[in-house]
Amino acid sequence: MTTDAHPQHPAPAGLTHVRADGTAHMVDVSDKPETTRAATAQALVRTRADVVAMLADGSLPKGDALAVARVAGIMAAKKTPELVPLCHPLPISKVTVDFTPGFAGDDAVIAVEAMVKTRGVTGVEMEALTAASVAALTVYDMIKAVDKHAVIESTRVLAKSGGKSGDWEVPA
Amino acid sequence: MTTDAHPQHPAPAGLTHVRADGTAHMVDVSDKPETTRAATAQALVRTRADVVAMLADGSLPKGDALAVARVAGIMAAKKTPELVPLCHPLPISKVTVDFTPGFAGDDAVIAVEAMVKTRGVTGVEMEALTAASVAALTVYDMIKAVDKHAVIESTRVLAKSGGKSGDWEVPA
Amino acid sequence: MTTDAHPQHPAPAGLTHVRADGTAHMVDVSDKPETTRAATAQALVRTRADVVAMLADGSLPKGDALAVARVAGIMAAKKTPELVPLCHPLPISKVTVDFTPGFAGDDAVIAVEAMVKTRGVTGVEMEALTAASVAALTVYDMIKAVDKHAVIESTRVLAKSGGKSGDWEVPA
Amino acid sequence: MTTDAHPQHPAPAGLTHVRADGTAHMVDVSDKPETTRAATAQALVRTRADVVAMLADGSLPKGDALAVARVAGIMAAKKTPELVPLCHPLPISKVTVDFTPGFAGDDAVIAVEAMVKTRGVTGVEMEALTAASVAALTVYDMIKAVDKHAVIESTRVLAKSGGKSGDWEVPA
Amino acid sequence: MTTDAHPQHPAPAGLTHVRADGTAHMVDVSDKPETTRAATAQALVRTRADVVAMLADGSLPKGDALAVARVAGIMAAKKTPELVPLCHPLPISKVTVDFTPGFAGDDAVIAVEAMVKTRGVTGVEMEALTAASVAALTVYDMIKAVDKHAVIESTRVLAKSGGKSGDWEVPA
Amino acid sequence: MTTDAHPQHPAPAGLTHVRADGTAHMVDVSDKPETTRAATAQALVRTRADVVAMLADGSLPKGDALAVARVAGIMAAKKTPELVPLCHPLPISKVTVDFTPGFAGDDAVIAVEAMVKTRGVTGVEMEALTAASVAALTVYDMIKAVDKHAVIESTRVLAKSGGKSGDWEVPA
Repeated sequence: MTTDAHPQHPAPAGLTHVRADGTAHMVDVSDKPETTRAATAQALVRTRADVVAMLADGSLPKGDALAVARVAGIMAAKKTPELVPLCHPLPISKVTVDFTPGFAGDDAVIAVEAMVKTRGVTGVEMEALTAASVAALTVYDMIKAVDKHAVIESTRVLAKSGGKSGDWEVPA
Repeated sequence: MTTDAHPQHPAPAGLTHVRADGTAHMVDVSDKPETTRAATAQALVRTRADVVAMLADGSLPKGDALAVARVAGIMAAKKTPELVPLCHPLPISKVTVDFTPGFAGDDAVIAVEAMVKTRGVTGVEMEALTAASVAALTVYDMIKAVDKHAVIESTRVLAKSGGKSGDWEVPA
Repeated sequence: MTTDAHPQHPAPAGLTHVRADGTAHMVDVSDKPETTRAATAQALVRTRADVVAMLADGSLPKGDALAVARVAGIMAAKKTPELVPLCHPLPISKVTVDFTPGFAGDDAVIAVEAMVKTRGVTGVEMEALTAASVAALTVYDMIKAVDKHAVIESTRVLAKSGGKSGDWEVPA
Repeated sequence: MTTDAHPQHPAPAGLTHVRADGTAHMVDVSDKPETTRAATAQALVRTRADVVAMLADGSLPKGDALAVARVAGIMAAKKTPELVPLCHPLPISKVTVDFTPGFAGDDAVIAVEAMVKTRGVTGVEMEALTAASVAALTVYDMIKAVDKHAVIESTRVLAKSGGKSGDWEVPA
Repeated sequence: MTTDAHPQHPAPAGLTHVRADGTAHMVDVSDKPETTRAATAQALVRTRADVVAMLADGSLPKGDALAVARVAGIMAAKKTPELVPLCHPLPISKVTVDFTPGFAGDDAVIAVEAMVKTRGVTGVEMEALTAASVAALTVYDMIKAVDKHAVIESTRVLAKSGGKSGDWEVPA
Repeated sequence: MTTDAHPQHPAPAGLTHVRADGTAHMVDVSDKPETTRAATAQALVRTRADVVAMLADGSLPKGDALAVARVAGIMAAKKTPELVPLCHPLPISKVTVDFTPGFAGDDAVIAVEAMVKTRGVTGVEMEALTAASVAALTVYDMIKAVDKHAVIESTRVLAKSGGKSGDWEVPA
């Protein structure tokens, strides 16, 4: 949250949320400058192709199912500091959550992508990850009666901008 | 949450949380009997081996890092109906969250396993998944300064018991 | 919440949430029997006809707008004891929130109707009212950029069943 | 929340919280300037005259009843972004909630008026409406044992200041 | 929460919330019988006599000050499982919070006493303690502008009933 | 929260959270300048020496017990405006919670010390007190099975800096 390792530089020597004696704390960000920051995260829900068809017809939402998951993700972004104990509260200024179905034979994946912006002193990758995770959990909740073996795969940060560590994104 | 498809039986025709007109609702569980129910879920945090070593030395926690993630998962289990919009509130009667590090060359995985029990009228797989997801997000928050490319893989239900659909577990 | 006045009987002498000395408390419901209870409440959002047309085309939802308000209402039902200080926590077993647009010349109304069920020891009219109110507030939030003079009219309980006071409903 | 229609100008072409494809999002306010903003909202609780007399004698509170509703309204203002899904979190800097009883024969009305201020980037009309609504719901909760037919009428914004759309108020 | 030491019996060998390997968990209460349980807790706010006089005149509340603290305590009782990580959620069935001022020369104490009941499977001493603590914190918040040196003394359980460990109370 | 009495100056004439008519409000801080502010608070948990030994061996935490209490305190600091009704929401920028065991014969005390910083318009003594109180309640929850007579003593502010009232601390 405070010191993003620049790819070209050595990683910090330890965990920022843990003090020298091993105890946890919420690190001091009082003196960090406010900048506009953004992060994008994804989560992939793998299920059966017929289940994805129930949720979405091509790229069009069918009924409320994905709208419910979208709202859940947006609201979860705002709850991040209540869920992740050492996260700082942040004035979130934008959230989007999008779903893209993809088919591969009998298998299918719903890609959840969450984008969060703030004008604040810490990054928003935890907020983006939380939005993507909770939207994916809500998709699972929608489909678990028809596919209890669905798996949420590959929850991760795709891109981040703002802050002193510079912008980066996962190569496509 | 209400009608778990028995593996040997055909899946329900549709999504239980969505009514015939496509709108979402919280389904009626007033007449379901109270039984003891349990569910186990996992999430895998893939990162570098040196990062896992910072969190845990063998199977022993080092400092507060994993304790913080454990507490986050336990508290998140209780917040499930606030996060997943159509989940029923449940009187949770037990939660455990465990971490097992595994190493494979330069790569390593921290396996998060959450187990939730209730004496109630609906299953607790969403509670177990939410506990595992939030514990994994908290691990990511701990390590993101040293590995921003960590990925949460394979969040899923491993086993479920109680309720009319019978007990099942994912083959090991 | 505890002693619903039967229509044919005199009203209680005072306010149930206030003790003899005027101070508030959460009344004792330890000895009340568990029964299945339901309540329906409404709220009416009055706005311009062209605004309602943006939200809904006939009875069909257009985009996510009403789905967002529906989810907000369902989640608010679960938050009732956090919002209304002297309400008891309840295991909510069903929630529906429905929207019906009505037109009258340049004016139009979106009727919000929320139905909540529980198997518990107190009534659920506060949960139904809270769901209807928050769904209506969310509709207002959606349309305030195009009609800041919209008004939420007539938030009230339409019907209640279960509990010792007997069933009742507002005449249509 | 972002683009208040100036009375003299045409309304925006659509709903700000809904994107071109009909899906909802939390709109971007990263670049909006911080200004001092205020909004006042009301809700009217219509009940019987004898019930209002139980709550208040003239303009003087009797016991804790209205104090409980006032606290509920103030706390609800702070919870607005948890309740209304697409609202931005805001650093609320002032809240007042006031009650004025009015009598008209056997009927009576308790007028709830909530005023909220912030120094932030979005308006606070949703916060003022939420405070007034929850205070009114709490009044209903207080009196429902003696008047289950009470109605919350006319929840609306009375005045707003700050922000680029200029100040306005509902004519008295 | 699960195994109250009977005064005449030896204390359990360890901490119930901590497993053999030292990690925390929420203990299993699935098989515990539901009984009616109650607990009473206190907290004492020590301040100056003139400050207590601002809050209360004899035993009569003056204005909303103590009503606000009472509501805060009642609402906090409901939030206990959100605050104390390993507490089980409970269907609280009664809460009272009372304030008794006492004077001793220039010094004075406001005694806060909270009583909580449930019909459930675990005791409610944490709920009573949380109610008393948060009511006392709210009293401090009210008076801190006039006495920043006020101290909350002696927060403890006064009495407990229900559950297998038998009833007990602190001698007066 | 707004006008800390300087020790050498007379106290304000009344309670800042209460208006002239005795009703409560959240005071206006719109025009206060943002500064860096900090506060430190403590709470002392008095119990038996053998119980403290179960929690901590010398100054070293044993297992998760104190880590759970630390996390509870940090998360509670962020929840302060949800718990204390008239507190303003604040962008907390740092929280630490530390435990120091002390022994005196058969008796022992665990001293909880919480430190909170913000860059904001109001002080953070309520956040520090809330963190210390909830951490102490969590310690009690850990040990209540072995010592139900433990007492939380002396919850108070130790030091405060920032804001117009100047820095101060309690003499050691």
